[in-house]
Amino acid sequence: MTSLILSAQVNERYSASTILKALVDHFGFSDTRTFKQRYLIADRHWQANGGSILFYTGNEGDITWFCNNTGFMWEVAEELKAMLVFAEHRYYGESLPFGEDSFKDSQHLNFLTSEQALADFAELIRHLRRTIPGAGSQPVIAIGGSYGGMLAAWFRMKYPHSVVGALAASAPIWQFEDLVPCGVFMKIVTEDFRKSGPHCAESIRRSWGAINRLSSTGGGLQWLTKALHLCSPLTSGDISYLKDWISETWLNLAMVDYPYEANFLQPLPAWPIKVVCQYLKNPNVSDTVLLQNIFQALNIYYNYSGQAQCLNISQTTTSSLGSMGWSYQVSIIISLSSTGSLLSCTEMVMPFCTNGVDDMFETYQWDLEKFSDDCFSQWGVKPRPHWITTLYGGKNISSHSNIIFSNGDLDPWSGGGVTKDITDTLVAINIPGGAHHLDLRASTAFDPSAVLLSRLLEVKHMKKWIADFYKDARRQS
Amino acid sequence: MTSLILSAQVNERYSASTILKALVDHFGFSDTRTFKQRYLIADRHWQANGGSILFYTGNEGDITWFCNNTGFMWEVAEELKAMLVFAEHRYYGESLPFGEDSFKDSQHLNFLTSEQALADFAELIRHLRRTIPGAGSQPVIAIGGSYGGMLAAWFRMKYPHSVVGALAASAPIWQFEDLVPCGVFMKIVTEDFRKSGPHCAESIRRSWGAINRLSSTGGGLQWLTKALHLCSPLTSGDISYLKDWISETWLNLAMVDYPYEANFLQPLPAWPIKVVCQYLKNPNVSDTVLLQNIFQALNIYYNYSGQAQCLNISQTTTSSLGSMGWSYQVSIIISLSSTGSLLSCTEMVMPFCTNGVDDMFETYQWDLEKFSDDCFSQWGVKPRPHWITTLYGGKNISSHSNIIFSNGDLDPWSGGGVTKDITDTLVAINIPGGAHHLDLRASTAFDPSAVLLSRLLEVKHMKKWIADFYKDARRQS
Repeated sequence: MTSLILSAQVNERYSASTILKALVDHFGFSDTRTFKQRYLIADRHWQANGGSILFYTGNEGDITWFCNNTGFMWEVAEELKAMLVFAEHRYYGESLPFGEDSFKDSQHLNFLTSEQALADFAELIRHLRRTIPGAGSQPVIAIGGSYGGMLAAWFRMKYPHSVVGALAASAPIWQFEDLVPCGVFMKIVTEDFRKSGPHCAESIRRSWGAINRLSSTGGGLQWLTKALHLCSPLTSGDISYLKDWISETWLNLAMVDYPYEANFLQPLPAWPIKVVCQYLKNPNVSDTVLLQNIFQALNIYYNYSGQAQCLNISQTTTSSLGSMGWSYQVSIIISLSSTGSLLSCTEMVMPFCTNGVDDMFETYQWDLEKFSDDCFSQWGVKPRPHWITTLYGGKNISSHSNIIFSNGDLDPWSGGGVTKDITDTLVAINIPGGAHHLDLRASTAFDPSAVLLSRLLEVKHMKKWIADFYKDARRQS
Repeated sequence: MTSLILSAQVNERYSASTILKALVDHFGFSDTRTFKQRYLIADRHWQANGGSILFYTGNEGDITWFCNNTGFMWEVAEELKAMLVFAEHRYYGESLPFGEDSFKDSQHLNFLTSEQALADFAELIRHLRRTIPGAGSQPVIAIGGSYGGMLAAWFRMKYPHSVVGALAASAPIWQFEDLVPCGVFMKIVTEDFRKSGPHCAESIRRSWGAINRLSSTGGGLQWLTKALHLCSPLTSGDISYLKDWISETWLNLAMVDYPYEANFLQPLPAWPIKVVCQYLKNPNVSDTVLLQNIFQALNIYYNYSGQAQCLNISQTTTSSLGSMGWSYQVSIIISLSSTGSLLSCTEMVMPFCTNGVDDMFETYQWDLEKFSDDCFSQWGVKPRPHWITTLYGGKNISSHSNIIFSNGDLDPWSGGGVTKDITDTLVAINIPGGAHHLDLRASTAFDPSAVLLSRLLEVKHMKKWIADFYKDARRQS
């Protein structure tokens, strides 16, 4: 009954993994290079007459991974007589514009933007509608989660002629500039831990000081290396990375705090934060006991399968997520220490901060200038923090239509999401007890009723978009 | 009472000609070059409290020329308490991304696209709203004519958060792919001549055969050179260019068939086609008499001022129109002969054709392949004829709102325009007796009542958009 089993089934279900020759640059005419964009198609339930097309707007990773983690689409296919299409995002999975050279330098990375990705999707939909008999006269609905949810929403905004509507799950389209407070994300992470066990958040809050004290001596560093079962010996220069890595672990746990065993970022038990918090009940212990407890907690995340020999502070998520491209485009790796910075070096500049009071982390102030300098030294590019809002409208999006914004209240990304209806057709669906795009995952017996309800609502909206499409088509013919 | 006089007044009226540092490439991050984008501002009637901003989306030419030929904006400024902004389109006027090198090759021309131009406008509006006290809380309305009208409409479609609405005058947004019949443009040109004098269109239809016959001998070429007062002696290789040039003259006359003396493409009398047709009453004359009559007709267009010593077949319009960039981007120079081709070599691929039956021209079949090859040999680029419809939606635009499409029935571009209401807020205004964006020109005592009415309607719509904006703002505060 876990999604792992379902994933295996899903994997066998898509009828074709296909390639479209896509332009490297849609927005100029001097560069005529093309690359192979991959997409997956499943048409078992599709009806050429009166059906629909559900189009997953691929995000930062191998598309088969998203295909296997979006059970919702598979489950509604029959009801909507839908063809399923999963489009891989350029620079991820097998859709590398320049093969191994794709991440070589800023020249090669120049075409890694959300605009180019949306143009890829528009060209792919055009191609499908022209080449698959029957598809040309059917409505297409964009579906995506997380960054893919942002793409789904933006796709409906920018190409409303390509898709009749969009389901944007856990899409933090407002996590830019000053649209939401920079501290909201880590505040939600903290809240998840606070609610999942007594003194859990407080134990984590105290752990930073304990690490700082222990790491101030050579012996302490040796002790920490051993106590945390790290693969490489810690040096004093590693401490900020260590704290970033631990912070990111808590953050990832908040994203995947699902009510059942799952393997999204890592294999994890049901309600993993509750499990983690069993080890973090007592903040009033010595530094060494506290850190031993922290290890037990981390070990849930990194070693639920029991296979890990040691913990590696340079890795936090599954390798299916394309971290190279993502850290150029944006990053979910939030570095809270003074030496670190968010690796969102082009358009996806998401300001984050912590104050240690409203959240359980060390204080981290958002410093755009430093951030920009770091980007330049790493990638040779400077971010343009206002571009996304200039391009996609920020909070001023009420003229658009047919977008569902769904958010779970456990998900820290909900802080940058749309959680209130904007108009009758730009609607928010909030899922109490839901983590990161829980609604897009395959249903299980452990789903909270709120997510069952939200899936019903989502299908209801999609059916209306489809019905409206066919009504308009009949009127015009 | 001519627009020439008004233009001079207008020229003195704008309070500032200003420069914004604009990015050469909005859609990538490796190229950080900038260029100086020019814009003009007039704020005499602007009210910082409760006013509005009318934003001219500059098209293919020097922005002062459009500023001087858009009297409508100057006339409604007081009523709308409006600031007027005229933004120059990149690669035209003084807004050259690479100075003299801008047109050097396809690498330098790579950033000449409608998408980059729209992004320039979005950044400029953002800049104005942030730097002019009061502007940030005001509604902006996009206004443009012809290609500028297409940009105004597309700007509202793609950046509805930047502008509350758009007035798209004489904007042939459907003159792409097979959205309208390729012959519609020249059919309207022909209709204008047919209605403007007896046998006028028939005389022109017969002139092509007369030219072909006369040009078949050396003596005939000499005679033609003299009869048409050409600046350079004709050779047999020039004949197709000669016919293109004459065709384009008729086409331009159809665009500027205004009810009063004007200087848009050339200085011309009121109702210039009527004047031209006075010389073309009799098609049943000898070839030489017919061509002498054709010269009289051409001479109205090229020598109304009486200054021209001879006629130059390589020039048809004022030099204020940036023909270099335009022939890369698109071209209004329609070559109907077998050797010529439309110079729309990137995104603005507008199929044109003639059949000599529904129109008064020699037969010309649209040949995309040949056209594409010609583009490649001239500019080193291949056009992408479907891109504009993929990007902007073709006829599937009903989800957008607040766009006025105005068209005059004399204007050949109305054939590719929106001449029927699409929804309550995507409205068509048709102007019987109107030529190319007559409604945007300054009013005169000779305006047909239809254009007076359409201007009133346009203002009514704009006032509603402005009122709705302020109503929403009050509700949100």
